[in-house]
Amino acid sequence: MGAHEEICSRVLEAITPKPEERRKVMSLAESVIQRLKSLLEAEGIKAEVRLEGSLAKDTWLSGEADVDIFVRFRPDVPKEFFKTRFLKLARKATEGYRQVERYAEHPYLECLADGVRVNVVPCYDVKPGKWLSATDRTPYHTDFIKANLPDRLKGDVRLLKKFMKGIGAYGAEIRVGGFSGYLCELLVLYYGGFLEVLKGALRWRKGALIDLAGHYKGREEEAREFFRHHLIVVDPVDPYRNVAAPVRLEKMCLFMAAAREFLLRPSEMFFFPSKPGPLAPEELRDVLRSRETSLLAIYMRVKGMVPDVLWGQVFRTLRALRGTLGRMGFEVLRTAGWSDEQEHCVLLLELASSRLPLVVRKIGPPVWVEEHIERFLRKNMADPGLVSGPYVEGDRWVVLVKRKWPDAKEFLAKHLSEEGGRQIGIAPLLAKCVEEGFQVLEGEELAKLCGKLKGFSEFLRNFLIGRPTWLVGRSGKAG
Amino acid sequence: MGAHEEICSRVLEAITPKPEERRKVMSLAESVIQRLKSLLEAEGIKAEVRLEGSLAKDTWLSGEADVDIFVRFRPDVPKEFFKTRFLKLARKATEGYRQVERYAEHPYLECLADGVRVNVVPCYDVKPGKWLSATDRTPYHTDFIKANLPDRLKGDVRLLKKFMKGIGAYGAEIRVGGFSGYLCELLVLYYGGFLEVLKGALRWRKGALIDLAGHYKGREEEAREFFRHHLIVVDPVDPYRNVAAPVRLEKMCLFMAAAREFLLRPSEMFFFPSKPGPLAPEELRDVLRSRETSLLAIYMRVKGMVPDVLWGQVFRTLRALRGTLGRMGFEVLRTAGWSDEQEHCVLLLELASSRLPLVVRKIGPPVWVEEHIERFLRKNMADPGLVSGPYVEGDRWVVLVKRKWPDAKEFLAKHLSEEGGRQIGIAPLLAKCVEEGFQVLEGEELAKLCGKLKGFSEFLRNFLIGRPTWLVGRSGKAG
Repeated sequence: MGAHEEICSRVLEAITPKPEERRKVMSLAESVIQRLKSLLEAEGIKAEVRLEGSLAKDTWLSGEADVDIFVRFRPDVPKEFFKTRFLKLARKATEGYRQVERYAEHPYLECLADGVRVNVVPCYDVKPGKWLSATDRTPYHTDFIKANLPDRLKGDVRLLKKFMKGIGAYGAEIRVGGFSGYLCELLVLYYGGFLEVLKGALRWRKGALIDLAGHYKGREEEAREFFRHHLIVVDPVDPYRNVAAPVRLEKMCLFMAAAREFLLRPSEMFFFPSKPGPLAPEELRDVLRSRETSLLAIYMRVKGMVPDVLWGQVFRTLRALRGTLGRMGFEVLRTAGWSDEQEHCVLLLELASSRLPLVVRKIGPPVWVEEHIERFLRKNMADPGLVSGPYVEGDRWVVLVKRKWPDAKEFLAKHLSEEGGRQIGIAPLLAKCVEEGFQVLEGEELAKLCGKLKGFSEFLRNFLIGRPTWLVGRSGKAG
Repeated sequence: MGAHEEICSRVLEAITPKPEERRKVMSLAESVIQRLKSLLEAEGIKAEVRLEGSLAKDTWLSGEADVDIFVRFRPDVPKEFFKTRFLKLARKATEGYRQVERYAEHPYLECLADGVRVNVVPCYDVKPGKWLSATDRTPYHTDFIKANLPDRLKGDVRLLKKFMKGIGAYGAEIRVGGFSGYLCELLVLYYGGFLEVLKGALRWRKGALIDLAGHYKGREEEAREFFRHHLIVVDPVDPYRNVAAPVRLEKMCLFMAAAREFLLRPSEMFFFPSKPGPLAPEELRDVLRSRETSLLAIYMRVKGMVPDVLWGQVFRTLRALRGTLGRMGFEVLRTAGWSDEQEHCVLLLELASSRLPLVVRKIGPPVWVEEHIERFLRKNMADPGLVSGPYVEGDRWVVLVKRKWPDAKEFLAKHLSEEGGRQIGIAPLLAKCVEEGFQVLEGEELAKLCGKLKGFSEFLRNFLIGRPTWLVGRSGKAG
């Protein structure tokens, strides 16, 4: 047995549910299903109640069971029904558990039962392609995997899922932008095993296409044109859906990089990454002093925002801030967002320096563009910040003037206090939060956030290190 | 009489040679010509001796007479003769004056006689187009202007020349890269007057074409394609020569800018600019402190270099240094060169800051470029300057590392001490000088040069101000 197989078998031992855990979770699922069935019968509603997801497909990870129960209604049931009577029913069926209403495209109920999450989700019983809601495909996915995934590959699916979790690429939610469970199953099915998926991923490029069911056989370019995505995995049950659509380029590439590394230097670290400890204030100070970059944080409260919406806003805002600060002359090295998804949110920006040189070269119009010259000369000659010029350089008027915003923190603080920062690119829903109050912190001031926000300090340490834990040192000479 | 005409007539009064000056200069010219003629006759050499240049064309400026005497030989005289017997003859003919041998394409003799420069230049008597040396065209130029420039336009030529001198755009030598006297004459002839030239220049764009003799009539695009220059003034006596070839884009545009300004706000300042005073050390310190840029100077000795060669090397070097420093991350605001053309040379660089942020983002290969990844990871993970990463950003491996050269002065000093700075772009002949010794000075250290180099301090003051003296303040609101 090679090193890879040995590690895989050890990991598999840890992540495959034992009979006792299986029994416990399955009986919990069965009891909720039964209660739902009798409640529906009592109300005279015709609907199918089904166990879906990794539990139904037997690809779940020990200690991380999610009980997904779908109630499949006939297409003539109005969507309004889902929000009202259905939620009432679901709440009744899970009485005694902690309940949270969630919203994807439509509402569903999430409960916590003895540490196991139970989701009760409504959907329509429709033919493939006639989808009425986003969850209608799920029963078909379950059926497809149950019918096609041989028992001997279930361990491989578990390994791939755990690998994705370990490297931070598991999950289709916006925060992660990674690989869903169903996508992992399709990949294992396509390549024929866990290690085979890793090897296969090394051959991916932008526009990689996996089409298990052969929907686009001989028309691959057509598929690429239709989906226009860096990774395309055509849904066997729906030729118009790319199961990999939520996978961001960066996560696709992170997985490719990790796959390459695991094949070269196999280790359990990929599946069980070491957790960073928190960062003490004096440690933060030392780290920041020795790295000599500028770390800026924008803190705001984001109570009541659905996670997918929140993270969408966070990423959009980080992209915009990177652009805005870049145009102001700052060199943004990295950005990141943090949130507990309940109340607090931090936008993190690392700049080469938050202070820019005071003088900037302003290039004016060519000497022959009559209509702009006078304006340029008049404006800059009246500018108290004029340092040198105007002079002719090449074919243009040029001046050296003092920069208006040489300090990034001041720039951010000033513009966040106006319209919630909409003008510098804060996304609308976050701008509303900023209008309620915000803080801009720099360098050692971030220690305040570490003290106040649970989990932020660990996040910050990871951010500062930057390197994935699975990327181990190289021996041998550089170059 | 309008404001422009009034100013022009006052200027003209000052720059038109008075009869007494005329007599003195012409008799000096005549005496040298006669001595040359008899010496040539005595040696039995057949050659024509002619007065050329602005004196012959009566377009010279009072107090700035240049006596250009050409000796026109038959084409069978070998060039070697110019260097030997001709120079001897010329020296004999100007005995008693201070003499300097000069080299353009071939040698000629320059003397100073009672403050008037006398040049004795050899050339060949050939048909147009059959040129054997660079000076063979000159007699044709003289003949053309004498035949075509009416007396009433001579004042206009004087005005244009003085205007060009005033704004620093007069002269075809490399240092200036501006408008020769002959070019000024052609422009006045073409547009029909001094103010008409200024107005005409406002319509110039890159590729402006002036073709007095109509050599390219109906084939203007062909002429542009042939000459490929921003300003084309076809020589009436040679269709293959662009009289404006030495004019750098910047000087063309400087003239256009000044023309526009003079037409809007006429003033004698354009012709008689105020001279800057020298810069006292404490003044230099105050100016540098308040402008907060970084001023760097490279000093070297350049004894024995012909001015055109020296300035060619200086401009080439400044362009290269701008590129090199830019690639190293420095923002070069302006560059300039200074030299007394005898012994000393200073390259001046103004940077937004000579210190860069210490950390830099290094973008590595895409995660799928197998052959480069391992090298990138190994090299950077072994780098003691590694700050963060490697991490995957977008589709690439990225690291944050400490910059190798965060200080411009150190960077320059180190690289100038290796091969005379050839690797960072010092042109070969200057690199040889640098190898003999150099200094890199920053900020207030430049005071040392001000004390030592005659005229440098005035140059530095002008450089720091940046603005042409003729560009006067604008009243009225900005924007």
